[in-house]
Amino acid sequence: LIQKKTLVLKKNNLHVLGEFGLIDKLTANIGDHSNGVMVGPGDDAAVLAIQTGHLLLATCDSQIEGVHFRLDWSAPADIGKRAAAVNLSDIAAMGGDPRFALVSLAVPKDFDVDTLLKIYQGMSVGFSSWNTQIVGGNTAGTSGPLMLDITLLGEVLPNRVLNRAGARVGDIVCVTGTLGNARAGCRLLSDGMPSRDLDEALSREALAAYRTPVPRVMAGEILAASGVVTACMDISDGLIGDAAHIAKQSNVEIVVDIDRVPVAEAARCVAASIDELPEVFAAKGGEDFELLFTAPGSGSARVISEIGDKTGLPVTVIGEVRKGQGVVVRMHGRPIPELCSGFDHFK
Amino acid sequence: LIQKKTLVLKKNNLHVLGEFGLIDKLTANIGDHSNGVMVGPGDDAAVLAIQTGHLLLATCDSQIEGVHFRLDWSAPADIGKRAAAVNLSDIAAMGGDPRFALVSLAVPKDFDVDTLLKIYQGMSVGFSSWNTQIVGGNTAGTSGPLMLDITLLGEVLPNRVLNRAGARVGDIVCVTGTLGNARAGCRLLSDGMPSRDLDEALSREALAAYRTPVPRVMAGEILAASGVVTACMDISDGLIGDAAHIAKQSNVEIVVDIDRVPVAEAARCVAASIDELPEVFAAKGGEDFELLFTAPGSGSARVISEIGDKTGLPVTVIGEVRKGQGVVVRMHGRPIPELCSGFDHFK
Repeated sequence: LIQKKTLVLKKNNLHVLGEFGLIDKLTANIGDHSNGVMVGPGDDAAVLAIQTGHLLLATCDSQIEGVHFRLDWSAPADIGKRAAAVNLSDIAAMGGDPRFALVSLAVPKDFDVDTLLKIYQGMSVGFSSWNTQIVGGNTAGTSGPLMLDITLLGEVLPNRVLNRAGARVGDIVCVTGTLGNARAGCRLLSDGMPSRDLDEALSREALAAYRTPVPRVMAGEILAASGVVTACMDISDGLIGDAAHIAKQSNVEIVVDIDRVPVAEAARCVAASIDELPEVFAAKGGEDFELLFTAPGSGSARVISEIGDKTGLPVTVIGEVRKGQGVVVRMHGRPIPELCSGFDHFK
Repeated sequence: LIQKKTLVLKKNNLHVLGEFGLIDKLTANIGDHSNGVMVGPGDDAAVLAIQTGHLLLATCDSQIEGVHFRLDWSAPADIGKRAAAVNLSDIAAMGGDPRFALVSLAVPKDFDVDTLLKIYQGMSVGFSSWNTQIVGGNTAGTSGPLMLDITLLGEVLPNRVLNRAGARVGDIVCVTGTLGNARAGCRLLSDGMPSRDLDEALSREALAAYRTPVPRVMAGEILAASGVVTACMDISDGLIGDAAHIAKQSNVEIVVDIDRVPVAEAARCVAASIDELPEVFAAKGGEDFELLFTAPGSGSARVISEIGDKTGLPVTVIGEVRKGQGVVVRMHGRPIPELCSGFDHFK
């Protein structure tokens, strides 16, 4: 029995398993390929079919241990699922259908193989919920932290592309869902989860928003099909910083009325417990992965109600597009200059 | 004057420059997008057009400081150029045209920005030599080493795909170019470049093979267009280990006559200086990025001479495909069992 156990342990050691043994284990459960995958993992490149008349969407995003996730904050499968969601969110923000993922792993040589397999499996489940297949990737040893680097490919009809550059003066600024829960969840984890100020259901909601955000793929498709959206992106670095990207690329000024920001209930409680204004707490928190978009006020009522009907997500008007540059944050109609900043990896 | 210099230094500090400042600097010189790029860097995803009737190729490969490259062994631009070449080689091995690259960077927070810009610029030059544009990417801070993770997209006509699974009993096994120079170059660097056994021109050749390998894109296209190639891959982990991949995926046995392996001149000298058989030294050395392919003997003469005529590369027949499994290495016609292994990242 002892011998058998030793053998199992040895088999799950990266040095014994080796690169190709690891790849075999990782890709064993990702299912049969079909639906456009002519050659999947295991060749020099994947061979893929994009639907006739469609454009290709390509995005990549990395998750690094200690920077983007912590092994003591999330279950391994949730870490993988989140890495998938972060990339799915980018395809959603372009109005596209996610299709194929390539997963590049940088793995510390002493990393536990079972944990790695659970992370990978979570990623695979996260993708398959949205009809996306893992078609290739890479594994390398590293002296640094575990890194999951995903490239996600999608497709979109040419007249449905949602980009950041089309916001027009007079448009309204909208956001799906509610904001602040991811930041609230992160805060609960970093502070050791104080339960006094927050009931259990709200706490669970905030933790789930942080650990396994839901990419707004359906909302993105509805926005793309509506034909009225002029600019769209997902909120990953924080509402205000992200609004600044639309302002810059569309060469307009975005006005955000912070009192109109839809604040998640848990975020409201956590903000109160640290004496921060809930709307500011929510607007500064990144990683909610809701969609921020602009559209002419006249044509947007139908798409807003369609999103509500089909996805259950509220859509809130939080501002307007004006002539000018940058983001102006207003409270009770008055500009608050000190609120204009987003998250930056090196600052 | 001092103040100005301080300012310049500060501007090139990642903490001051910030993530978006860095992205602006990185993408400032990559040129105007055209030729299928509808939306380039700076949006949630790139929007790309694949030629009608073509299949998409997708591959990814990472280069990690201390594992795949060393800053004291190569100039920054060469590190970038090499990262591009490693990925271009994978598209070449599938018979495709490289088109679009996504570059994901994990950067230590104290990393020198000028060095990073030079690496990125080298990558961009490496890609543009093969008509490939950088269309997107990601930057993240890391507590680990610098990592360049590239996803490369290409296109190929459906009847021109070269994969690993089609080798047939009776085929011959061929390799482009000569082998061993990359390993020789690496050896020269790790041993502090002994000049006694190697003249300067050969030494330069070996170092160039290691630092800036040339992807065999043209040879791959000729092989794909020939219609006779049954399996193909690039040699990245070493001839014998890579031949094992074709054997496994084609469900055949590959016989390699090691005395027929085309050994580069510098590799021959370096092997002699360490008392290793030159053919074994060359066959075990990875990262030559030559193409290894199988084809029926009868139909391959024309494609071999075409590659010679159009690219100047020799093509050498080094073995044959038999019924069975795995790789058999023969010397003077006799099997040498102890020679069957390739490079593995975790072993």
